[in-house]
Amino acid sequence: MTRTSKGLYADPRFPARLGSMGGEALAVHLSPEEAPNRWYNILADLPEPLPPPRDEEPGQPRLKMLGEVLLGECLRQENATDRWIPIPPEIQDLYLQAGRPHPLFRARRLERHLGTPAKLYYKSEFYSPTGSHKVNTALAQAWYAAAAGYERVTTETGAGQWGTALAYAASLVGLKTTVYWVRAVHDWKVERRNLMRLFGAEVHASPSPQTNVGRALLRENGNHPGSLGIAVSEGLEDARSDEKAVYCLGSVLNHVLLHQTVIGLETRRQLEMIGEYPDVVISCLGGGSNFGGFALPFLGDAIHGKEVRFIAAQSEAAPNLQGEYRYDHADHAELTPQLKMYTLGHRKEMHPIRGDGLRYHAAAPIISLLRHLGYIDTIAYPADEKYVFERARAFVQAEGFLPAPESAYSVACAIDEAVRCKETGERKVIAFNVSGHGFMDMEAYREILGL
Amino acid sequence: MTRTSKGLYADPRFPARLGSMGGEALAVHLSPEEAPNRWYNILADLPEPLPPPRDEEPGQPRLKMLGEVLLGECLRQENATDRWIPIPPEIQDLYLQAGRPHPLFRARRLERHLGTPAKLYYKSEFYSPTGSHKVNTALAQAWYAAAAGYERVTTETGAGQWGTALAYAASLVGLKTTVYWVRAVHDWKVERRNLMRLFGAEVHASPSPQTNVGRALLRENGNHPGSLGIAVSEGLEDARSDEKAVYCLGSVLNHVLLHQTVIGLETRRQLEMIGEYPDVVISCLGGGSNFGGFALPFLGDAIHGKEVRFIAAQSEAAPNLQGEYRYDHADHAELTPQLKMYTLGHRKEMHPIRGDGLRYHAAAPIISLLRHLGYIDTIAYPADEKYVFERARAFVQAEGFLPAPESAYSVACAIDEAVRCKETGERKVIAFNVSGHGFMDMEAYREILGL
Repeated sequence: MTRTSKGLYADPRFPARLGSMGGEALAVHLSPEEAPNRWYNILADLPEPLPPPRDEEPGQPRLKMLGEVLLGECLRQENATDRWIPIPPEIQDLYLQAGRPHPLFRARRLERHLGTPAKLYYKSEFYSPTGSHKVNTALAQAWYAAAAGYERVTTETGAGQWGTALAYAASLVGLKTTVYWVRAVHDWKVERRNLMRLFGAEVHASPSPQTNVGRALLRENGNHPGSLGIAVSEGLEDARSDEKAVYCLGSVLNHVLLHQTVIGLETRRQLEMIGEYPDVVISCLGGGSNFGGFALPFLGDAIHGKEVRFIAAQSEAAPNLQGEYRYDHADHAELTPQLKMYTLGHRKEMHPIRGDGLRYHAAAPIISLLRHLGYIDTIAYPADEKYVFERARAFVQAEGFLPAPESAYSVACAIDEAVRCKETGERKVIAFNVSGHGFMDMEAYREILGL
Repeated sequence: MTRTSKGLYADPRFPARLGSMGGEALAVHLSPEEAPNRWYNILADLPEPLPPPRDEEPGQPRLKMLGEVLLGECLRQENATDRWIPIPPEIQDLYLQAGRPHPLFRARRLERHLGTPAKLYYKSEFYSPTGSHKVNTALAQAWYAAAAGYERVTTETGAGQWGTALAYAASLVGLKTTVYWVRAVHDWKVERRNLMRLFGAEVHASPSPQTNVGRALLRENGNHPGSLGIAVSEGLEDARSDEKAVYCLGSVLNHVLLHQTVIGLETRRQLEMIGEYPDVVISCLGGGSNFGGFALPFLGDAIHGKEVRFIAAQSEAAPNLQGEYRYDHADHAELTPQLKMYTLGHRKEMHPIRGDGLRYHAAAPIISLLRHLGYIDTIAYPADEKYVFERARAFVQAEGFLPAPESAYSVACAIDEAVRCKETGERKVIAFNVSGHGFMDMEAYREILGL
């Protein structure tokens, strides 16, 4: 059953920019009944086994901690080998509540603006109650936490999108949330902090006086700027000292990518409904949950022989897919086990960028293995972000939707591919994900574009 | 063809707040093919003729000006008597591009939180590329302007939602936009101004040095705070002095309400798909374009005998529906003809509120006539906005979507009705519109709720 629109454009007075849409689909909507009712688990299809987490310290305290800290169901999913994991009906309903399924759009106006023969399709993850795709795993984790009898979730956040998503999800299922937020970011993203509080979350600038870790650091420096590693430590300490609380993670791990596959599953179905399959699949990549969520269902097809090209859009500030493929910690403070990842090193200093969600030293183990096996290309854009934001502006003016700074990388990469198609004359089908909206990031647009 | 979800909730461990959804619809989606392809024109169904605009000055310069200034097609629609006006396919496609049709949600979690037997349904106009329902008429007007050969649109804006919507729509159809923005608002809504600029608009604080009107006022006071009336004058003068430019209006007039009826038409169809019809229809009302867009299709049914109650949610700062029903100017500067409206007087001083879009001295002629004939009730909430924002917070925490300050009035009124149903035990069906999102209004939430 296709849900597309075919418009007729007969009015010769009409400006070329709008012109004839040629009877092709402009937007593809899925009904709730057509929404995915299971997540895709690529662990079942990987060409070789995923290297497991490692802890070289005697007694393996970090591996034990991981086992203690993760929700039982998430831990099970972390190692599951079933290709399909059923989405509990209650989580399906939470996805509905969050506005899923989201439409797929044809970027017809952008194509005309670029003069490309390529066909560009973008997924609207910007239709998010909190601003990004992070809600897809936040809802699952919050629901599992509630079902397991916990009363509170704790977490860390860097850019703030993950903390907001978890605060939102916890509110919907009746849990409390405590967010430890890297102080350097917490202090200037006042409006995002208020959004978390509006969802009922307790938000602490990290390091905070709430934990032993935080208090010790504050004694050294009362204005300590914090780091993601410190915030992780605080969230962990908080959850471990309260049996009614559990710690949640927003990226990198297998179960997080699993939950995000609803994005790619919806997209693949939407393309199928209009008789399309992508030649190129593009999204931005920090830790890998957005890229994985969008690309994994197509990567599964690629493993089974389908010809598809995958491009991860990154920043030169954190081009982790150009790093080394080796075991490394997921955090600065070495609290986590080592994971086999493409990494810049867990203590790498990274230049600040507006697409802060891309500023992570390593890529998720699943993504890293697939990169290692040659399935994933990558491009890193200059850290001044002018190139990326200029392309985001072209997208905004042609398509009307405002991408989050991170999503602007996805847009820029799709435009680059479309321009290449113009040069070669190839009519490629390019699918990309716009993982979040930028309504709370106008300051970034102003600064970089000089509005 | 229904597109609803029925979830099963068998897990006894699960907290009551999520509990059983009882197999009822949580979200109703329309496919693009099911989207309205015509606007509903209530002029065909009004119980008595709409009093026409009036100009008592010899020669009727204001009436003539209205005729000159409006787009030909909009002027025709202003007085059309056909019940249904076809939406040109190109505008249907622009609606698709803007993400229409938007889902209808059942506020099941909010109902449980309130303990009401009422069924609450809300329309998601917050799924807007620019933040509000204003895009529905902006796209139509921009397309008509482009089709008529204009190269630029001009307008005024107060709260900023209309200026953003027009900048967006003009960008999509390849027109330039000039926005005159009341200086007092322009100067503090920096991020919204930047969003207009990102869409390519030229934005002037009004009074501005661009026009004779503006220059004269600036000579008196270089820091003149401006007013909507002055901004209107500037937009008009600018458009009239450039034959390639045309002036566009965002509320009050019949054709604006007409374009907005896509909201109510979609909603009525969505309710029909799940076998529902509302007992109560609620939305906020400033000039009337949002309320009209949502309610007019149902008001048409009410005129034909259907039992429905309509409530317009307003602020005590501008309770225009409690004013006098008489001829009055639509603007402070008396540039517009007089319209028969419920009005507080066009020179009324109104207390500043965060729901600035509700701060208008009069209600659209169509709405005013229907109020006069007894079809529309109204409630005005205290101007400190605490009551309204507290209810918006309950909505955010239960449903997860962040309403614009104006839309918070709609939410508050729906909650009040639901609470009344709790007292009386009535299982009423309440439909309300959430006309915009609040991602750019977190400061209002912070200030009023003390986050």
